[in-house]
Amino acid sequence: MEVVIIGLGLIGGSFAKGIKRLHPNATLIGIDTNNDHLTEALEIGFIDAKGDTNALKTADMVVVSIPVDVMVKQLPAILDAVKEDCVVFDAGSTKTLICNTIANHPKRRNFLAAHPIAGTEFSGPSAAFDGLYDGKTNIICEVEKTTFKLQERALKLFQDLGMRIRYMNPEAHDKHIAYVSHLSHISAFMLGKTVIEEEKNEHDIFDMAGSGFESTVRLAKSSPDMWTPIFKQNKDNVLKSLEEYIKNLESFKEMISENDFEGIYNQMNNTNRIKQILKGIPLTKTLD
Amino acid sequence: MEVVIIGLGLIGGSFAKGIKRLHPNATLIGIDTNNDHLTEALEIGFIDAKGDTNALKTADMVVVSIPVDVMVKQLPAILDAVKEDCVVFDAGSTKTLICNTIANHPKRRNFLAAHPIAGTEFSGPSAAFDGLYDGKTNIICEVEKTTFKLQERALKLFQDLGMRIRYMNPEAHDKHIAYVSHLSHISAFMLGKTVIEEEKNEHDIFDMAGSGFESTVRLAKSSPDMWTPIFKQNKDNVLKSLEEYIKNLESFKEMISENDFEGIYNQMNNTNRIKQILKGIPLTKTLD
Repeated sequence: MEVVIIGLGLIGGSFAKGIKRLHPNATLIGIDTNNDHLTEALEIGFIDAKGDTNALKTADMVVVSIPVDVMVKQLPAILDAVKEDCVVFDAGSTKTLICNTIANHPKRRNFLAAHPIAGTEFSGPSAAFDGLYDGKTNIICEVEKTTFKLQERALKLFQDLGMRIRYMNPEAHDKHIAYVSHLSHISAFMLGKTVIEEEKNEHDIFDMAGSGFESTVRLAKSSPDMWTPIFKQNKDNVLKSLEEYIKNLESFKEMISENDFEGIYNQMNNTNRIKQILKGIPLTKTLD
Repeated sequence: MEVVIIGLGLIGGSFAKGIKRLHPNATLIGIDTNNDHLTEALEIGFIDAKGDTNALKTADMVVVSIPVDVMVKQLPAILDAVKEDCVVFDAGSTKTLICNTIANHPKRRNFLAAHPIAGTEFSGPSAAFDGLYDGKTNIICEVEKTTFKLQERALKLFQDLGMRIRYMNPEAHDKHIAYVSHLSHISAFMLGKTVIEEEKNEHDIFDMAGSGFESTVRLAKSSPDMWTPIFKQNKDNVLKSLEEYIKNLESFKEMISENDFEGIYNQMNNTNRIKQILKGIPLTKTLD
């Protein structure tokens, strides 16, 4: 099997490492506009060779793990280049624009739209690790638009990597992911900004920061190159979620301001349900 | 040594476990208004006996780890009850009101105001563990108002538990802790609330939530009994930090709305400095 990985960061690199373990005889070719990343990936050993678009002609599988703005520009040409029985899948955090971009492409049936909900706040080839996808959810969009045999090839890989597969349409994906992922990033970035601004002249104050702050602000370490185009492509949903978040913060502020500490208590108490939610226990109790 | 622990939750229980390890011959007496917690603490074994205020008369050390609203009510009576050479320290997340409350108490010099920056999102005796304080910061306020010998006894314990000691005045503590701790909790609670509200009819959406959401929302599991009085006592500082946070979120929203993605990129890029900050590397580079 010949596999081409386009984009050798955390996501692409972790796919490469998993594929190397599962298919020791596969040949992995790396493509990246950053030549340092190519060299690093080769040194780490998760690709066998540096390649260019010529490698696409004979590939059996192409993993496209590049920022979503570059994705919509490159994806049509990638599909143009691949052979009939090659499956191309992406890992982008937005799905509507990507699916729309190649909706009428002659090789639409070679493409599977995927969003593995996996990552860390680190990036680049050195951040990649085998096991990143184990136990994680992979959202697949418009699965019916992909040739059956090629669906199977990609889905088999996801299952072998230990992923749980979920199917959604691109619009629903983008709407919900704004809440459970994109908003968290903005919340963390703005928390980091607020604290850095306040404490700019008192650096030792961060000695006071505990694991709670560290956890809440963790996503503010994320890559702006990756996240700027995500917010751009999912603008409407992100704005809506942000508006509701700000509204809730404003109302919490009002309650503190007006000494409504019973209200404060009740809101926190209700939100404690997040414990059960994160454990995967249903929100509402059923009778049996 | 006789030690009385008032409040047998995560904080008090973790002190008790550490003291038991460091001083195997110490007698630990537990006091808690929740009788189930008393029984649980006795079963876990981090206290030797249930006690009441009588136990204070002979205690050499009293750890007060109760919500800060109860603290300001109880602390004067606790100090009334202890003997001349007993040290009483607290672990409250606010310091100004606590210090003011006992400022003129005849036994002021028996009290050491402390805030160990340590905790998890869990509470109660079962959440307590030895090691919670290892490597953590402990903020001490108005250390000069405590008898030297009693300062020493408490500080020795903190050092033996592996804590880094920092000295501040209560007002500075409350101002800065609003940013590096209290604001994180509000940010997380409101993120949890926003997502639960949006997704109330679509529970399986939480399958889409990854470790990023989990990390950012983690503090929304915290106890409202503990946090409501903290926000009340630190109202002015909390309101100020919340105002600045909301202002930053509003401006980020504006930039997305107006397609100023260069601005979005720059804000995230600047905030990436949080990586270095959390690693303890100075914010600004010096020449040598």
